[in-house]
Amino acid sequence: MNHSRRWFLGLGSVVSAALVACRKAAPAAPPSAIGAPVSGYGARSHFEKTERFLRNAVAPPPEATSSRTPLHDTYGIITPSSLHFERHHAGVPDLDPATHTLTIHGLVDRPLVFTVDELKRLPSVSRIHFLECSGNSASEWKGGGEPTVQRAHGLTSCSEWTGVPLSTLLRECGVQPKGTWLLAEGADACRLARSIPMAKAMQDALVVYGQNGEAIRPEQGYPLRLLLPGFEGNMNVKWLHRLKIMDQPAMTRWETSKYTDLLADGTARQFTFDMDAKSLITRPSGGDTLAGAGVYELTGLAWSGRGAITRVDVSTDGGVTWNRATLQEPVLPRAHTRFTWSWRWDGRATMLASRAVDDTGYVQPARADLVAVRGLNSNYHNNAIQQWNVAADGAITNGNA
Amino acid sequence: MNHSRRWFLGLGSVVSAALVACRKAAPAAPPSAIGAPVSGYGARSHFEKTERFLRNAVAPPPEATSSRTPLHDTYGIITPSSLHFERHHAGVPDLDPATHTLTIHGLVDRPLVFTVDELKRLPSVSRIHFLECSGNSASEWKGGGEPTVQRAHGLTSCSEWTGVPLSTLLRECGVQPKGTWLLAEGADACRLARSIPMAKAMQDALVVYGQNGEAIRPEQGYPLRLLLPGFEGNMNVKWLHRLKIMDQPAMTRWETSKYTDLLADGTARQFTFDMDAKSLITRPSGGDTLAGAGVYELTGLAWSGRGAITRVDVSTDGGVTWNRATLQEPVLPRAHTRFTWSWRWDGRATMLASRAVDDTGYVQPARADLVAVRGLNSNYHNNAIQQWNVAADGAITNGNA
Repeated sequence: MNHSRRWFLGLGSVVSAALVACRKAAPAAPPSAIGAPVSGYGARSHFEKTERFLRNAVAPPPEATSSRTPLHDTYGIITPSSLHFERHHAGVPDLDPATHTLTIHGLVDRPLVFTVDELKRLPSVSRIHFLECSGNSASEWKGGGEPTVQRAHGLTSCSEWTGVPLSTLLRECGVQPKGTWLLAEGADACRLARSIPMAKAMQDALVVYGQNGEAIRPEQGYPLRLLLPGFEGNMNVKWLHRLKIMDQPAMTRWETSKYTDLLADGTARQFTFDMDAKSLITRPSGGDTLAGAGVYELTGLAWSGRGAITRVDVSTDGGVTWNRATLQEPVLPRAHTRFTWSWRWDGRATMLASRAVDDTGYVQPARADLVAVRGLNSNYHNNAIQQWNVAADGAITNGNA
Repeated sequence: MNHSRRWFLGLGSVVSAALVACRKAAPAAPPSAIGAPVSGYGARSHFEKTERFLRNAVAPPPEATSSRTPLHDTYGIITPSSLHFERHHAGVPDLDPATHTLTIHGLVDRPLVFTVDELKRLPSVSRIHFLECSGNSASEWKGGGEPTVQRAHGLTSCSEWTGVPLSTLLRECGVQPKGTWLLAEGADACRLARSIPMAKAMQDALVVYGQNGEAIRPEQGYPLRLLLPGFEGNMNVKWLHRLKIMDQPAMTRWETSKYTDLLADGTARQFTFDMDAKSLITRPSGGDTLAGAGVYELTGLAWSGRGAITRVDVSTDGGVTWNRATLQEPVLPRAHTRFTWSWRWDGRATMLASRAVDDTGYVQPARADLVAVRGLNSNYHNNAIQQWNVAADGAITNGNA
């Protein structure tokens, strides 16, 4: 919630000018007393206050709440588990892993019930993948105005996930030829359920129990979550307790009345699984104030549900010219990718923007182009280019406002 | 501290046999009440109890303590920050980032003092790297006997670190031609200090303030740590507050009486910076019990301070034959690398072992070969192959005992 509003010193002369001033600062005397002992499970410093932004957390019912990752104040590509965004529809259930089970039934030769311990004994894989709520950036469709990157776009995060390939489990059950869809259901109070194409289940879907090296967090689905790399967040069903093999989609409320994209002509896009390529300049961003003309490092995140990011272009003149940003290794498919670019600001009002390209050749669209195709009826799948206005006094605001 | 002693079901018929039994288990009824609301900074499930193993934590002075990562109970390549091993010599200081500074002085044209905020404004990079205490596996030199992989080898962990290239700072200060070494000093009560060759400082050293996406943890050096990718742990000075440019090493107590390797002939290896290639089978491992003959997935970690892991071989017959394990992507230089191998156990007593090879061609040595060269006088730099004994009843114990 605390936006640090830090600004960025640049390279060369700017750094030197700024740091000459530092020479006179007296270094603080380090402590001379013996410090704290070792501990079983560590915690962050009490000086650190960064938190998720809680939206609609108090008055409305739980199904209208979310918490958003402080993208302006996180580093690298791994999102700390404690700051991974949350979107749940009936709150976070408190599930005991000793009794929680995953049932696979329907069009299978051998319906099976797996305990969590049994799943942990099976061959596992770990993969670094982003998760983005398809409602991320929803506020930006109709003109925007959210003041910070956290509030506007904080429904995306990236973790190292560990679990069992779903294909392993399905082969044990023996999926019948007619089984072309799965219904995945969570054990939360609303039993959130989504229909998954069998091809995705067999390709790269995982039943995950690990997140960033330890047990998956409660708000991310503890003890079991379905992970569908690149697919919209809510399909990655949390608190997974049931997979039913079917010969058609179930048409649940979460794939009919919700999470469909109503177009201008009154028809709706449905089963829009893959999250399209997207990028954000996260620092500096809305709420920051630049100290004055000089060189600034721009940094941000890019990702695509369809594969790996191949290029991020940055514009510092509102989209007239574009410059190729540096992509930081590792660049992984369906994962946040960190980019940086050094910008020399002349001190005049301008606009900053980034544009991602993925390895299918897809180019992140301008907002006007996206609206021309999709209209303004939907809250979902807004992957338009984000512009940040920079005023002559250095104040940065949402360019979509 | 809680070793789960889980065992591993295997593939194919073993899985089927085990899971047929599951069919009759009644799935637990999921909760029907609204769950917990969103939160600002999340925590792990209260059902999760895995902790670091605290060695010598109570009676001895802080300089003799450590805490060790539960390698048998962590996943993937990222170690959770809360479970990253600890080794400190005067406890964990409580440093205020608003007053903590980094001073660079000595053989430079412009001595500078940096505040933490100033460092955060400079161009940054994020890198995934392991850190290993050079005293890791010390218990295994003289016959070993630590019962678990956590207790024997838990002084290695891997994080995504974010910070400023040290070369950027040194260029601002203008290192004089005679400046060939740096003394790096921490702000803990013992002022732990190590001498660093200038070549490493300019090559890939970082002054890091970020760990796994957020601020570095207190026990890892909050708010600033020197990161020297691949170098022994204690050279990565925590609570970094001073870098003095010198024309020779300082010969501190931590590079003379400690952290040198006394050989059989009475001479000592000193400044043994790079951690040599090493690997461990982490599951199953000491303390686990196999359920019976069948197929088991072996998994473990490999790393090298000199570069990337290119191969891990696994032996399930005590080193007579070796099999090439699968390396899980991403395989990154100077980072933990996850390997797996499927093993069909015939139910007879045997020994398990893994052997890493890095991209310099270096091969992890057998313990006898390492002892032949290094003798048994030193506690440091034990990267010998770890063997796990498997008894006919499935019990796994330390093969070095």
